[in-house]
Amino acid sequence: MADLNRQVILTSRPAGVAQAENFAIRHAPVQQSAPGQILVRNHYLSIEPAMRGWIADTGNYAAPVAIGSVMRSLASGEVVASAHPDYAVGEHVSGWFGWQDYACVAADQVVQRTSAAEMRASLGILGINGMTAYLALTLVGQPRAGDIIAVSTAAGAVGSAVGQIARILGCRTIGLAGGPDKARRCVEDYGYDHAIDYRTDDIGAAIARHAPDGVDIYFDNVAGAISDAVVPHLAQRGRVVVCGTASIDRWAPWPTGPRVERHLLVKRARMEGFVIFDHVDRYAEATAQLQAWIAQGRLTWREDILDGIEACPDALAGLYRGENDGKRLIRLV
Amino acid sequence: MADLNRQVILTSRPAGVAQAENFAIRHAPVQQSAPGQILVRNHYLSIEPAMRGWIADTGNYAAPVAIGSVMRSLASGEVVASAHPDYAVGEHVSGWFGWQDYACVAADQVVQRTSAAEMRASLGILGINGMTAYLALTLVGQPRAGDIIAVSTAAGAVGSAVGQIARILGCRTIGLAGGPDKARRCVEDYGYDHAIDYRTDDIGAAIARHAPDGVDIYFDNVAGAISDAVVPHLAQRGRVVVCGTASIDRWAPWPTGPRVERHLLVKRARMEGFVIFDHVDRYAEATAQLQAWIAQGRLTWREDILDGIEACPDALAGLYRGENDGKRLIRLV
Repeated sequence: MADLNRQVILTSRPAGVAQAENFAIRHAPVQQSAPGQILVRNHYLSIEPAMRGWIADTGNYAAPVAIGSVMRSLASGEVVASAHPDYAVGEHVSGWFGWQDYACVAADQVVQRTSAAEMRASLGILGINGMTAYLALTLVGQPRAGDIIAVSTAAGAVGSAVGQIARILGCRTIGLAGGPDKARRCVEDYGYDHAIDYRTDDIGAAIARHAPDGVDIYFDNVAGAISDAVVPHLAQRGRVVVCGTASIDRWAPWPTGPRVERHLLVKRARMEGFVIFDHVDRYAEATAQLQAWIAQGRLTWREDILDGIEACPDALAGLYRGENDGKRLIRLV
Repeated sequence: MADLNRQVILTSRPAGVAQAENFAIRHAPVQQSAPGQILVRNHYLSIEPAMRGWIADTGNYAAPVAIGSVMRSLASGEVVASAHPDYAVGEHVSGWFGWQDYACVAADQVVQRTSAAEMRASLGILGINGMTAYLALTLVGQPRAGDIIAVSTAAGAVGSAVGQIARILGCRTIGLAGGPDKARRCVEDYGYDHAIDYRTDDIGAAIARHAPDGVDIYFDNVAGAISDAVVPHLAQRGRVVVCGTASIDRWAPWPTGPRVERHLLVKRARMEGFVIFDHVDRYAEATAQLQAWIAQGRLTWREDILDGIEACPDALAGLYRGENDGKRLIRLV
C-alpha cells in the first residue's frame, strides 16, 4: 500500500449544520491492518441528515465526532487486506469506515456484507435508510391495512421508502415534500396517493382534505413547523414516528413550538423516537424483506452521486440546502 | 317523590376554568323513571380536574357540556326507584348522574355497582381516579421493578395512587407537588421515596439528583412548565404517560413550550395519551386489584369533602386554586 489515504477531518464544531469550512482534507499514510482488523478501500461514502447530530456536541444518541478526527460516516468498499479470519480480500462490506479512501477497522465496524453490485444500495435502500424506513414504520408506526399515513421528507432516502412500504402494507399515503418537483416525484415515482408541497401549500388544510378522519401514522423526519401542522390532524390512537428533526437548525437555545400534550391526550395518541442502531439484531430480516420487494419491482429509489472526496466538505450542507435528488453518495472509485 | 330536585346548571362557557358565576342552581321536579331507567338519589358528587375539559368547547374526548344543562359529573347514590330489571331499590351505584340531587338515567349511565360503605371510594380510589392510576400506569407506563418514576400532582387523587401502586410494583418514586405540606404528605402518607416542591425547588436539579440516570416513567397530570423540567431527564426508552394537562389554563391561543421531538428521538422515548373511558372492559379487573391492595393496607387516600349542593359552583375553581386536600367530593346526604 504505497497509496496515501485522503481523510476528511472535522476541524471545528459548527453551531448549526456543518459547512465546508468546518472540514479539511488531510493526506495520511494507509495503515496496516493489525490482527483482527481489515483494511477496506472505500468506493462510496454516505451523506446522512443525521450527521448534523453526530457532529453537534449537544445531547445525542452517540458521542460527538471529535475535532481533529476523520468524519464519522457509513461507507462501502472492498476488503484489500485482512487480518481477520471471517473476512477475505475481495469481499465487499459496508460499515463505519469514515470519510476517507482507506479504513483500517476492527470487525465490529462492519455493518453488513454486500456485493459489488449492491455497494451503493447498501448505503441507502439496503442500508440504514431502507432499514430505518421498514423497522421504524413497522415497530413504532404499527401500520394496519387501511391506515392513512403522512410522511415528511417524503421524496428523501428514508421517506420515499416509507411511502412505498406503507403502500405495500395496504396504507393510504400522503407525502410532504419541498417544491413542485419533489411533490410530483412523490406521486409519480414513489406511488404516494397524495403529495403536499410544504413550501406553498397550506399543510393543515391539505391534510384535512386528504385525511378528513385524521392521519393514523405520521412518520416524521423533520419536526418543526411541518410537524406542527400535521400533529393536530392525528386520528384517534394515532402514532407519530419521531425519526428525525431535520428542519430544526440548532437546539441551543432550545426551540419552542405548539404544545403536543393536549393532542396526545385527546387523541390517545403516541409519539415515539426511533434510532436504527438499536435494532442491529433485525438488520438481516429487514434487508431480506427489502431485497424481496426490490426483486418484485415494488421498491424503487434514487441516488444523488457526487464524485471525488473533494465533494465531502460541502455535501452535508448541500443536503440541508435541499440540493440532493435522492440518496446522496460520494463516489471514490 | 314530592321532593324538588336541585340541579347545578352550566349557564355560560368560561374561557379558562369554570368559576362559580358560570353556574346556577335550579329547582326542578324529580323525574319519574321510564321503562329501562332508574332513579338515583345522589349521596356524593365528584369534582375532577378533567371537568375543565368537559366544559371547554375546544377539542376534547367528549362533547362539551351544553349551556343550560346539568353539569356532567360522576356521582354515587342509592337507587330509589327502578324500572330496570337489573337494578333494585336500595342498591348503591356510581355513574354519570350529574350535579343534582336525583338522577333519572338509563342503565348505560351506571359505571359500577358499589356499596353503602364504598360510595365515596367509588368516586375516587375505586373509581376513575384509582382505575386511571392503575391502568394508565400499567398499560402505558409499563413499569418494571427497579424503574424510577416521577409523578406530577403526586399528592392528588390520581397521583397519590400512582405513587403507591408504582411502589407496590417495585419502582422508586419521586413525587412532584405544590407546597411543603403536599410535598411532606407525598413521603409520609403515600410512601414516595422523594418529594419535590415544584413551587420552590429547582425541579430539573432535583430530578437529576434523585434520578441521575434519568426517569424511566413520567406520569404527567399537568403538562406545562413542570413537565418541561422533567422531560429532559427521561432515561433511555423512557415513557411519558400523558394523563392530564391541569397546569394549562387555556388552549386558545394554543400555548407553546420547549419542543419534545429531540428528547423523544435521542432517548428513544415515548409519550402517550390515556383516557380512562376507553378501558371500560378493564374496570372490574382494576377495581378488584385496588380493593385487594386496600384490604392489605397498602393503598391509602384522602378525601376533601364539601357539604351541600351550594358548594358545587365554586368547587372546581377551588380545585384549580389548589385548595383541596385529597379527592374532592360534595356530600348531599
